[in-house]
Amino acid sequence: MSFRARHLLGIEPLAPDEITTLLDLAQTYAEDNRAGRTHRDVLADMTQINMYFENSTRTQASFELAGKKLGADVMSIAMQSSSVKKGETLIDTALTLNAMHPDLLVVRHPSSGAVDLLAQKVNAAVLNAGDGRHEHPTQALLDALTIRRAKGRIHRLSVAICGDIAHSRVARSNIMLLGKMENRVRLIGPPTLMPAGIAEFGVEVFDNMEKGLEGVDVVMMLRLQKERMDGGFIPSEREYFHRYGLDRDKLARAKPDAIVMHPGPMNRGVEIDGTIADDINRSVIQTQVEMGVAVRMAAMDLLAQNLRAARAQTAVAAGTR
Amino acid sequence: MSFRARHLLGIEPLAPDEITTLLDLAQTYAEDNRAGRTHRDVLADMTQINMYFENSTRTQASFELAGKKLGADVMSIAMQSSSVKKGETLIDTALTLNAMHPDLLVVRHPSSGAVDLLAQKVNAAVLNAGDGRHEHPTQALLDALTIRRAKGRIHRLSVAICGDIAHSRVARSNIMLLGKMENRVRLIGPPTLMPAGIAEFGVEVFDNMEKGLEGVDVVMMLRLQKERMDGGFIPSEREYFHRYGLDRDKLARAKPDAIVMHPGPMNRGVEIDGTIADDINRSVIQTQVEMGVAVRMAAMDLLAQNLRAARAQTAVAAGTR
Amino acid sequence: MSFRARHLLGIEPLAPDEITTLLDLAQTYAEDNRAGRTHRDVLADMTQINMYFENSTRTQASFELAGKKLGADVMSIAMQSSSVKKGETLIDTALTLNAMHPDLLVVRHPSSGAVDLLAQKVNAAVLNAGDGRHEHPTQALLDALTIRRAKGRIHRLSVAICGDIAHSRVARSNIMLLGKMENRVRLIGPPTLMPAGIAEFGVEVFDNMEKGLEGVDVVMMLRLQKERMDGGFIPSEREYFHRYGLDRDKLARAKPDAIVMHPGPMNRGVEIDGTIADDINRSVIQTQVEMGVAVRMAAMDLLAQNLRAARAQTAVAAGTR
Repeated sequence: MSFRARHLLGIEPLAPDEITTLLDLAQTYAEDNRAGRTHRDVLADMTQINMYFENSTRTQASFELAGKKLGADVMSIAMQSSSVKKGETLIDTALTLNAMHPDLLVVRHPSSGAVDLLAQKVNAAVLNAGDGRHEHPTQALLDALTIRRAKGRIHRLSVAICGDIAHSRVARSNIMLLGKMENRVRLIGPPTLMPAGIAEFGVEVFDNMEKGLEGVDVVMMLRLQKERMDGGFIPSEREYFHRYGLDRDKLARAKPDAIVMHPGPMNRGVEIDGTIADDINRSVIQTQVEMGVAVRMAAMDLLAQNLRAARAQTAVAAGTR
Repeated sequence: MSFRARHLLGIEPLAPDEITTLLDLAQTYAEDNRAGRTHRDVLADMTQINMYFENSTRTQASFELAGKKLGADVMSIAMQSSSVKKGETLIDTALTLNAMHPDLLVVRHPSSGAVDLLAQKVNAAVLNAGDGRHEHPTQALLDALTIRRAKGRIHRLSVAICGDIAHSRVARSNIMLLGKMENRVRLIGPPTLMPAGIAEFGVEVFDNMEKGLEGVDVVMMLRLQKERMDGGFIPSEREYFHRYGLDRDKLARAKPDAIVMHPGPMNRGVEIDGTIADDINRSVIQTQVEMGVAVRMAAMDLLAQNLRAARAQTAVAAGTR
Repeated sequence: MSFRARHLLGIEPLAPDEITTLLDLAQTYAEDNRAGRTHRDVLADMTQINMYFENSTRTQASFELAGKKLGADVMSIAMQSSSVKKGETLIDTALTLNAMHPDLLVVRHPSSGAVDLLAQKVNAAVLNAGDGRHEHPTQALLDALTIRRAKGRIHRLSVAICGDIAHSRVARSNIMLLGKMENRVRLIGPPTLMPAGIAEFGVEVFDNMEKGLEGVDVVMMLRLQKERMDGGFIPSEREYFHRYGLDRDKLARAKPDAIVMHPGPMNRGVEIDGTIADDINRSVIQTQVEMGVAVRMAAMDLLAQNLRAARAQTAVAAGTR
C-alpha cells in the first residue's frame, strides 16, 4: 500500500501515489455506500473524537457518519472558543484528549496551523477538518474523486476556481492537489480577493470570469463569505453576482460538458444561479457531498492501518511480542 | 403486513389498519423494553439522521434512543434557524443530507408543511417529529397506545382535549387519529384558542371545562405556551388555571376511572394541578413517555421494512438481481 | 464482590473495601485501555443517559467514552438551565427520563443535593458527575487511582490540597476519600476560601503554602474560579500566584518525589506554573485524565452488575422465573 502518512494534515505533504491510493479506496466505499453494504469491522477497535473549535454542520456530520459506518466509537466535542483563547490552552486540550487514548482525532480550528501544532502533541492519527485559511484536505480529495468520476481522470484537466480565493482553505487545498496531479488551474475573482504571491503556485489568474472560464473542463465555485461584502472588498451581492456569479451565459464559455462544483452551503443568486446548481446535467454538487463520506471513510481506514502497523512495530521493538 | 406508508408525515394519510399494525408492534416493543430485551439487529444496516430545526429535548431523546435500541447508526444535527431562513435553503439542506444516503430521516421544523416538502426531495423514509401547527404523528400514536393499554381499546371512547387547541399540532394529530378510530372527541378551551372551521372535524366544542369533561373516559391536557399569556389571548396564569386548569373538582366530572394525559413538559399549577399529575391512579403521563420510545421503534421498524422492500423491487426491476 | 452501592452519589456513603474494589477493577481497565483491548460486551445490554445541567467538556467526554468503550447505548442531553429553575421541574425531568428505562444515569447539576434527590425518583443506577459544592466522586476516585499508581499505595500518605477549598466539590470528595483510606490531609489556602467547620474533617489547615507543603507526598492543586477574583475574596491573579500558586520554590518544600496533581482545566500562571504542570517527573495531570476513563468504566461496570443482580432478585420474588 502506498499511503504512508501518519496524519492527514493537508494536501501539501501527500505524494501523488498516496492521493491515488486514497481515491481508489474511497471509490470502492462510494459504491458500497450506494449499495447499502456495511463495513462495521474496519474501525471496530477504534475511538474517533471530533473536536470542532468552529461550527461546521456538514463536515462534522460527514466525518461522524463515516466513522460510525466503519464501526468506530465516535464522540463529537464542540469546543467553546472562549476556553481556547490562549495557545497554551489548545495544547492542554490536546494533552487532555490524548490521555483518553483516542485513535483518530478529527479537528477543525479557526487558526491556520493549529491542527498541525496539535498533531505534534498526540498519539492519535489527526485529520484536519479545516484550519483557518490553511488547508481542508478532505474537501480537496472529495472534489478530486467527484471530478474523476465525472471526467474519467484527475489529470490533464483545465479547472477554474472562482470567487474568494484569498480567504479559502478549500481553494488552497484544491490548488495543491490539482497541481500535484498535473492539471491546469485558473483562478478567477476580484483582485481584492486574490491571495498575494499566487504566481508561485503555477496557476493562471483572471479578473474577468468570461475569459477565465473559456474552455475549462471543471468550474469550481467557492462560497462567498457574506460578512466580507459591502466592506470595501466587493460592492454588493447584486454586483458580485453580475460579475462573478455563475449563470448560463458565463457557463457557456466553458466546455460543453464542463461540470459545476460548489463546496456548500450555497448562496443561491450570489455566487451561483440556482437553476445551474440544480441542473443534473452540469451540477455535481450532491455528488461532492456523497463522495465526502466515502473519502473520509477511506482516509480514516488508511490512517488506522498505518496506526496499527506502527503500534505493532513498537510492540515488537519493545519485545512484548 | 398492512403498514404501507413510505413516510410517517402525519396521521392524516394513515388508514385505521395501518394505525393498528403500528400500535400492535409498538406494544411488543414496550413489553420488551420493560423486560430489557434488545433488538439491535432490526436497524443494524440503517443510518438514522435526526434534524432538529427547533429545540425538543424529550422528543429528540426518544427518537435517538429508539434508533440506538434497534441498532441503527444514529446522528443528531441541530440546525441553526439562522441558516434556514429561506425555503430554498431547506431544500439544499435536504439534498445535502440525502447525498449522505441516510435510511431514516427524523425532522422537526417550526413551519407547517416543511417536513412534507423535505420528504419529496429525499430517498430516505422521513418521520415527522413535529412541524409547526400541522402534525406530530408519533405523539398521537403514543397517546393512542397509552389509552389502549389503560382502557383496553382505542375506539368508542369519549376523549376531551383541553387547552390551547389552536396552536397545537399535538391536538391536531390526536383529533385525526381519534376520529379515524371512531372515538368521540371534545375540545375544551377559551374561544380565542380554538381553531377556525373546527366543526368539520366532527368534534364537540366547549368553553366551559366542567361541562366538557362530563362523563369522558380520557382527559388530555395540552401544554400552555406561556408566551401567549397576558397578551390578549388569555388573562393570566392564575385566571387560566381557575377556568381551564385540571384540578380535583373539574376532574370529578369525568368518569370515575378516567385517565389523565399530558404531552409534557408540564406547567404545574397552570394547566394541571401537580397532585393530579402525580396521582398514579389517574395520571398516565409517565406511561406516555415510555410508549413514546416503543412507538418510535415500531414506526422506524415498519418504515425500514417498506424501504428494504422498495429497494429490492427496484433492484429486480433494474435486472441487477 | 464487595461493591454494594446501588448508586455512586458520593464518596461519603462508600466503605473503604468498596473503594478498593473499584480501584482494583479500574486498574485493569486502565491497562486494557493502554493496550487497546476492548470490552464491548460489559454494558452491551445497557442504556446510559448523560444529563448535564452545567457545562463540562472533559467530564462529559470521559463518561461518554467510558460507556461507549463498554458497549452501552450512550445518549447525552444538555439540559438548558432555563427549563430547570424549579425543583419540581427537576423531578419531572427525572421521571420523564426514568420512563425511557435507562440503566445508567450520569448527572451533573449546579445545586448541591440535586443528584441525590433525582436518584430517589428513578430506577436507574445514578452516577454523580458533580453537584454544586457537594461531591464529585469519580474525580476523587481517579485521583486516588493516580496516587496509588505513582506511590504504590493509597494510605498513610501526606496529601496537601491547595486553593479554593470552600467552593470545591473536588476538594470535598477527596478529603473524604483520603480520610477513609487513612491518609493525612492538609488544606492550604486563603482563610476566605476555607470552608467553615473544617476542623471536624480531621484535617490540618494552613494559610501559608510553604509551611503547608512541608514534607508532603502529594500536592493537589485546585482550579481557581476566576470570577471570584478581585471581588474581595482574593486580590488579583498576580498576587494569588505569588502566595498560593505552585512554583519551583514552594514545591521544593514537599518531599523530593512528591507528585503534582490538578483536576483541570488549568489556569497556567495563576494556580500553577506551566513548567511544573509539564514536568513529567513531577506532574501526573495527564495520568489523572487517563485514569478518569478507567474509573468511570469500573464504576459503571460495578453498578451494572448490582443492577442486574437486583433485577434478577425482583424477578425471582415475583415468580416470573
